[in-house]
Amino acid sequence: MKILITGGGGLVGQKLARRLAERGTLRGAAIDEIVLADIVEPAPVDAPFPVSTRVGNIAEPAEVAGMIDDDTTVIYHLAAILSGHAEVEFDHGIAVNLMGTLHLLQRAREIGTAPVFVYASSIATLGGEVPDPIEDWTATNPQTSYGTQKAAGELLLNDFSRKGFVQGRGVRLPTISVRPGKPNRAASSFMSSIIREPLNGQEAICPVGLDFQHYYLSPRMCVENLVRVAEVEQEALGMNVNMTMPGLTHTIGDLIDALRDVAGPEPAQRIRFESQPEIEKIVMGWRYAFNPAKALALGLAADNSFRDNVRYYLEDDKPSP
Amino acid sequence: MKILITGGGGLVGQKLARRLAERGTLRGAAIDEIVLADIVEPAPVDAPFPVSTRVGNIAEPAEVAGMIDDDTTVIYHLAAILSGHAEVEFDHGIAVNLMGTLHLLQRAREIGTAPVFVYASSIATLGGEVPDPIEDWTATNPQTSYGTQKAAGELLLNDFSRKGFVQGRGVRLPTISVRPGKPNRAASSFMSSIIREPLNGQEAICPVGLDFQHYYLSPRMCVENLVRVAEVEQEALGMNVNMTMPGLTHTIGDLIDALRDVAGPEPAQRIRFESQPEIEKIVMGWRYAFNPAKALALGLAADNSFRDNVRYYLEDDKPSP
Repeated sequence: MKILITGGGGLVGQKLARRLAERGTLRGAAIDEIVLADIVEPAPVDAPFPVSTRVGNIAEPAEVAGMIDDDTTVIYHLAAILSGHAEVEFDHGIAVNLMGTLHLLQRAREIGTAPVFVYASSIATLGGEVPDPIEDWTATNPQTSYGTQKAAGELLLNDFSRKGFVQGRGVRLPTISVRPGKPNRAASSFMSSIIREPLNGQEAICPVGLDFQHYYLSPRMCVENLVRVAEVEQEALGMNVNMTMPGLTHTIGDLIDALRDVAGPEPAQRIRFESQPEIEKIVMGWRYAFNPAKALALGLAADNSFRDNVRYYLEDDKPSP
Repeated sequence: MKILITGGGGLVGQKLARRLAERGTLRGAAIDEIVLADIVEPAPVDAPFPVSTRVGNIAEPAEVAGMIDDDTTVIYHLAAILSGHAEVEFDHGIAVNLMGTLHLLQRAREIGTAPVFVYASSIATLGGEVPDPIEDWTATNPQTSYGTQKAAGELLLNDFSRKGFVQGRGVRLPTISVRPGKPNRAASSFMSSIIREPLNGQEAICPVGLDFQHYYLSPRMCVENLVRVAEVEQEALGMNVNMTMPGLTHTIGDLIDALRDVAGPEPAQRIRFESQPEIEKIVMGWRYAFNPAKALALGLAADNSFRDNVRYYLEDDKPSP
C-alpha cells in the first residue's frame, strides 16, 4: 500500500506519517511507501518502509500528476492555504484550496482504482445563519474564503465518491490544541500558546475572557481519527461522506483548570489576560456547539478532557530543556 | 442600466428578457440594454431599448470577458448544463456549471463596481441526509453532479458577496411547471407534459401515482421572483445570500384537480398512468418539503395554487390552434 500525504510537512502531516510508520499497516494492508508532498521540502520521517518527499504545488495539475501514481491506494489531502492567508490572498486561496482539491480528485479519478481520499476540512466551513448545535446536516455557511473553499471541496469530494471515482471521506477538524512550536499569526494561536508557553516557562497572553468557549481536539487524537476514518468502509459513510471530527467544547477556564490539574499551579500564573479587540472580533464569530454524530458512529473520538491535550503535549511535543 | 442574462436563449432567460422589456426599469433605474448570452444564438426579444445577443461558452474565461463590460450593472446567471446531461458528461458539467460560474464571478469582480449577480441555483442542491422540511440553513447534500456544481457555486457567490466583489443573491428554483414546448429528456418532464399535452388535445403519460408529491412554481412567478430578488438591498440578504425560491408542494392529484378546475373535465381524460420504473427511481429521491423563509421575508412569492400554473400556461404560452 502506497500513501500520499499532501501538506506532509505540516504539523498534522508529520505526526500522521510518524503514526503510520509506527503502525506499519492501514486498512489491513502493510504500508509499502509514504509520499510526503508539500510546497517546501518536508522534514524526513523514520519508518520501516521508504518515505519519500516531493515538493510541488497542488494548484498545478502537472505537479499533482507526479504526486499520485497507479499504485497510490490512500490519499490524505491536508495541504491548504489557511484562513488568514486565504482572506488576504483571495486568488491564491481559490487556486490551492479549491482548484488544488479538484486537481487531486481528478488525478485520483484518472488512475481508475477509486483510491481512498481522506480530505481534511475544517469547522471553518461552519458558521453564519445556522442554529446551534451544528449537526452533520447543517448548512456550511462559512464566513471566510478558506471556509468557503473547503466547503466547496467537501461537495466535490462527495460527488466524486458518489460517482465511484474515489472512496472519499471528509473530516472537519476542530481547532488543534496544544500545537507544538511557536505562536503563529492565526487568530486561534492563543488557544495553544496559553498552555504551551507556560509549560515552557514563558509568559502567554490570553486575549479573551475565562468564559470564552471553543471546540478543541489534541493533535494526537486528530491523527488517530485520520487513521480511523481511512479504515471505514465506503458504504458506512452514506450519502454524505463529510462529517465534523469529534472535539470537545471548553471554556478558557476549563483549559486553565486542566493545565493546573496536570502541571500544578505554577505554569498557569504565567498567563496574562489582555484584551485584543481585533482577535476578539474574529473569534467571537466562531461556533463551538457541534454534534459530530456521524463521526462518533464511525468510531472517531474526541479527547476525554482537556487534561489529555495537556498531557499529550508534555509526552509528545514539549522540547527537552 | 445594462443587464446580462446568461442562458438568455432558454425558457426562463427569454421570459425574463421579455418581462424586463415590458417593465423598462430595474432597481429604480431605466434599462438601457440587455445582453442575451447563450451557447447558441438566442431568439430576439422586442424591447424599447437595444437587446443584443452573444454566442459564447462560459467555460472559457476569454468568452466570459466579452459578456461583461464596465457598464454591466446586473448579471442574471441562468446558464447551466442540466441534471441529466451533467450526470453523463461529468467534466462538461464541472467546466460549465462550476468553472463557468467562477469565471463569471471573477469577471464581475474585475470590473470593480460590485454588480448585482443573480444566480439561478436549484432545489437539486438539496437532498441526501437531511431532515424535512428543508430550511434555508439545511445542508446542501446534492445527489447529482448538477446539484453539486450548483451548490459549490452558491458557496462562491456568498464569498464573493461577503468580500464586496459582487452583490450576489442565489435562488434555488423549484421545478418549473407548466413549461411550454415539447417534452424533454429531464426526469421531471412529465410534471409539465401531463398538463400541457392534454390542454393541446394530446395524450400524456404520468409515470407516478396520484400521491406523488413535488415542489412547483410557474414560469411567470419564477420570472417575477428573479426581478424581485435583483431589487433587494444587499444588507437584507444577511450572511447567506442563497435561498430557496418559494414554490408550492402538490400531489399529482392536486395538479389534475387544478387542470379540471381551469379547463373542465375533458383534458384530464387524456392522462394515462403508466409505471416507468427508471423515472420513478429518480424522482422518488427528490425532496418536496421546503421552508423558503428567507425568500418569503424578502418579498418573493409562490403561486396561489396550481390553478395559477395552468392559467398562466393558457395565457402566456399555449400555441394558437
